[in-house]
Amino acid sequence: MSELRRDPTTDQWVIIAPERGRRPRQSPSQLEKPTHALPFDPTCPFCPGNESQLPAIIAAMPSTKTPGWRTRVVPNKFPAVSQNVTYSKQKTALHQAAACRGNHEVVIESPRHDHDLTTMPEQQVRDVLATYRNRYVALMADNAVTSVIVFRNRGKTAGASLLHPHAQLIALDTIAPLVRARQATMLSYYQKEKRCVLCDIVTYERDNSSRVVSENDGFMTTVPFAASAPCEMWLLPKYHRADFGDLPDAEVELLAIALREALARLRKALDDPPYDYVIDTAGKGASETAALHWRLRIMPRVTVAGGFELGSGLPINPSLPEEDAAALRSVRPILGS
Amino acid sequence: MSELRRDPTTDQWVIIAPERGRRPRQSPSQLEKPTHALPFDPTCPFCPGNESQLPAIIAAMPSTKTPGWRTRVVPNKFPAVSQNVTYSKQKTALHQAAACRGNHEVVIESPRHDHDLTTMPEQQVRDVLATYRNRYVALMADNAVTSVIVFRNRGKTAGASLLHPHAQLIALDTIAPLVRARQATMLSYYQKEKRCVLCDIVTYERDNSSRVVSENDGFMTTVPFAASAPCEMWLLPKYHRADFGDLPDAEVELLAIALREALARLRKALDDPPYDYVIDTAGKGASETAALHWRLRIMPRVTVAGGFELGSGLPINPSLPEEDAAALRSVRPILGS
Repeated sequence: MSELRRDPTTDQWVIIAPERGRRPRQSPSQLEKPTHALPFDPTCPFCPGNESQLPAIIAAMPSTKTPGWRTRVVPNKFPAVSQNVTYSKQKTALHQAAACRGNHEVVIESPRHDHDLTTMPEQQVRDVLATYRNRYVALMADNAVTSVIVFRNRGKTAGASLLHPHAQLIALDTIAPLVRARQATMLSYYQKEKRCVLCDIVTYERDNSSRVVSENDGFMTTVPFAASAPCEMWLLPKYHRADFGDLPDAEVELLAIALREALARLRKALDDPPYDYVIDTAGKGASETAALHWRLRIMPRVTVAGGFELGSGLPINPSLPEEDAAALRSVRPILGS
Repeated sequence: MSELRRDPTTDQWVIIAPERGRRPRQSPSQLEKPTHALPFDPTCPFCPGNESQLPAIIAAMPSTKTPGWRTRVVPNKFPAVSQNVTYSKQKTALHQAAACRGNHEVVIESPRHDHDLTTMPEQQVRDVLATYRNRYVALMADNAVTSVIVFRNRGKTAGASLLHPHAQLIALDTIAPLVRARQATMLSYYQKEKRCVLCDIVTYERDNSSRVVSENDGFMTTVPFAASAPCEMWLLPKYHRADFGDLPDAEVELLAIALREALARLRKALDDPPYDYVIDTAGKGASETAALHWRLRIMPRVTVAGGFELGSGLPINPSLPEEDAAALRSVRPILGS
């Protein structure tokens, strides 16, 4: 039977349609196969030694000054947003337009071309997450910036154009529509219930654990009630915090453990699927920080939205979230060194 | 330079980012190649002679009773919505859910496995569109149904699972979120301007023709101002009409000419890309029909939305709509017999 479910954090409705097809984990043929990469690719702009292909190096861990980097941050060569442009806003009844100002950065997550978050050492994942946070804070420090989207596309079907492990940050001088919708929905919940919706979800899921995948001292990993794709997962900070930029180092460690495990389970459950993840965080101008709570959202890309979704705005998830969570719990995650 | 543009019919903002990459028409390698199909496939459930694989035949042209059909309508074997279910709504602060009731039908657009809308005779495209309209009207006649999404997915990347030419209709007992948002945006424009927004777009584009692709007595084909993908096209009825179901036969003919030509231009301009199209139409409960105006919206699937779009809700279009329209105008559409 098909069911409509509402996401209480975004007000997005989703169709859960288990009869829509065989479960995706049963049809690995539709999935993108992992590439067997070498540790170094002479044509890859992110590999060490190919720095001449990079427009600049913005930051690095441990530093841009010392050799032997673990993570690096560079400008995106094909940015989605513009820096330093002059543009006059357009506004008529039919045509509204504005400059799309901001910054578009790439985090190179390892010198190794063939590593991924599940195969690199845990310490490296910590460095990756600390780099996200540090760049998030640096970009948000610009007065013109009001929201920063931190995201990672893994696999061509998920929007990645390069294999070398990397994530991206896009800083905008506007609050993006989904960030605004999420803020409004979370605030409305808070005003009614006097509690944060994600804190309530953590409590509810702990007591009714059919959708919990795993948990550590800092984070709970769950398949959300209104998951819009098979094996969608949320990594929820158990400690209430509105903004990802405020994440202390001790929690970076716990997030690294949770993220590595979640991705390893996903890799096993859906045969190394393409996925995107994004950090949903407060952004500026969100005065009611008691109502907001950041999270990391992983979206496997194993279904294709077609004309129905385009016309209706209703994603179709052919999996039952409760069954997906059970499948993710039952696999043994394989982790690298 | 990147620009933010607002769609005046949906209130959706889009990033137009021509520097984001080379134009898609210059990189055909990223596109799905057309399959060289035979006129008949013994394994295809939609091919004549394989009727045992069909759950039922709901309708046909000229009729279900005569041999030699031109179009057929069958139930979707893996429906996204359910018929005749009993289900109690769930509603707490955290969990809202309802049955997703409705009908899911498939229009088989030709007995020929290898035909497509650009290669079949024009008369056949007319039959296809008349079949869409007739099924739309039949499904809307059910009192429980409030909106029907008519759509076509062409190519795997666009969500199609079968090659045989077909489209789908999904009838819902709820107004889908995007249908509601479009109704609200079009109504708000009407209240301010005292005119229909799509009528205004037709007039504006005719006088400022940089985005018009082609035109006949009944329809104008344009790349919209805030196109969310390269070569997105709208087929706009020049005569104001809120509901697709009211389309008279004379206009079905003109729509067939416009659609066939638009798809042939797209095929040539982007090297036979995967695409979806959807018919945006009024739905029930839309009392202000002077404000609403149906259209057919074609969305080529040559870019991939990744984590940024997932987090921000802002599509990135790496093409300039004005340049796309020029490219679509300049190609010579190749049509079949």
